[in-house]
Amino acid sequence: MEKILANVDCPVIMDEAYMEFAGGYDVDFAGSTMTLLSKYENFICLRTFSKAYGLASMRVGYGVGSRDLMRILGKVLLPYHVNAFSLLTAEIVYKHKQLFVERTNQIIAEREKMGKALTELGFKVWDSATNFLMFTAQPELAAKLSKFGKSEGLATEEGTATKLAGQTVFKFLVNKKILARDFTRNQALEGGIRLTLGTPEENVILLGAIKELCEKAGGI
Amino acid sequence: MEKILANVDCPVIMDEAYMEFAGGYDVDFAGSTMTLLSKYENFICLRTFSKAYGLASMRVGYGVGSRDLMRILGKVLLPYHVNAFSLLTAEIVYKHKQLFVERTNQIIAEREKMGKALTELGFKVWDSATNFLMFTAQPELAAKLSKFGKSEGLATEEGTATKLAGQTVFKFLVNKKILARDFTRNQALEGGIRLTLGTPEENVILLGAIKELCEKAGGI
Repeated sequence: MEKILANVDCPVIMDEAYMEFAGGYDVDFAGSTMTLLSKYENFICLRTFSKAYGLASMRVGYGVGSRDLMRILGKVLLPYHVNAFSLLTAEIVYKHKQLFVERTNQIIAEREKMGKALTELGFKVWDSATNFLMFTAQPELAAKLSKFGKSEGLATEEGTATKLAGQTVFKFLVNKKILARDFTRNQALEGGIRLTLGTPEENVILLGAIKELCEKAGGI
Repeated sequence: MEKILANVDCPVIMDEAYMEFAGGYDVDFAGSTMTLLSKYENFICLRTFSKAYGLASMRVGYGVGSRDLMRILGKVLLPYHVNAFSLLTAEIVYKHKQLFVERTNQIIAEREKMGKALTELGFKVWDSATNFLMFTAQPELAAKLSKFGKSEGLATEEGTATKLAGQTVFKFLVNKKILARDFTRNQALEGGIRLTLGTPEENVILLGAIKELCEKAGGI
């Protein structure tokens, strides 16, 4: 990031929406690009209350940058673009951020547990520094899931076993009223499913559903 | 309005932010351009919860137009441009709009009373179909107020008696912690002061302050 900043004249924006899940509650957290703000005038770092603070429905976040850059931004922002109630709520949760640190730590612990469980079932799980996990079925499991999905009408498209396995997982979860994010048709993430971590209780149900599918497909 | 609509091809927008103060709580209110929506495809009528409903800090309103026009608008709106809490609040107050009709009627009654009182003091008061009043000092009162304002340091600019009288009123009210809208430098409304009606109790204080100024200036 610093290499980019040092070599361009244009403004550079970093979106740190999920930084709290990487340990970045503190402004001086070493892993955050916030630390570059004192050095570069062309830099804006964005944070949001939509993720770790759970305020997505309030539509509130903030950007930090040099005085000159923010002054220019201020000229193009609509007046009153964040409503008073959202600002008030953000102020309150920020004052109580220690409560959210605990919740975030719980989500991180759940993420590691869930990642391990999915790996054991035969999925490839990407490293995550957020509150979600991305995974695809490894070849052996993909063959079984895609076959099962086709026979059960869960995977109706053409494609590789990986892609059809992902669609089988997605549809199986939807039928249980669990909505994952469907990346199965994405070229770079073919067959990919993204799951947001819930409460420990919700995660038990979630993992139970995926296990049930793998068993039915003959994968366990 | 209908003449404009019938003679142009471009979209036409009417902002009915203050329509409730003109009696327009009902969609089929004859004075509202809402009634033109069924006839013209190129028309959007705007309403807001910021005025009669008192929700300015929630930043929520709505536009009504033909399906085709709104579909195009939908393409350029930012996602989640109104937060969930504002939508919920708007829904609740709309369900209870009868309560606001009463409050609006009270403001209309106060507006008429205040308008009459200001006229008697020697001001020219514009007709209003909103929750505010615009007024300037008539020549006789303007001469007295501008003279008083100059001697007291309330009117420090150069200009006509009307302009200086308006600035005297504005500053006198500010010193009493009453903030009016200052149109005194506006070419078309020279010396104009715009006052938003408050509660009956607030209006008594407001009118008392203006009377006090007129007395001090020798206008009563």
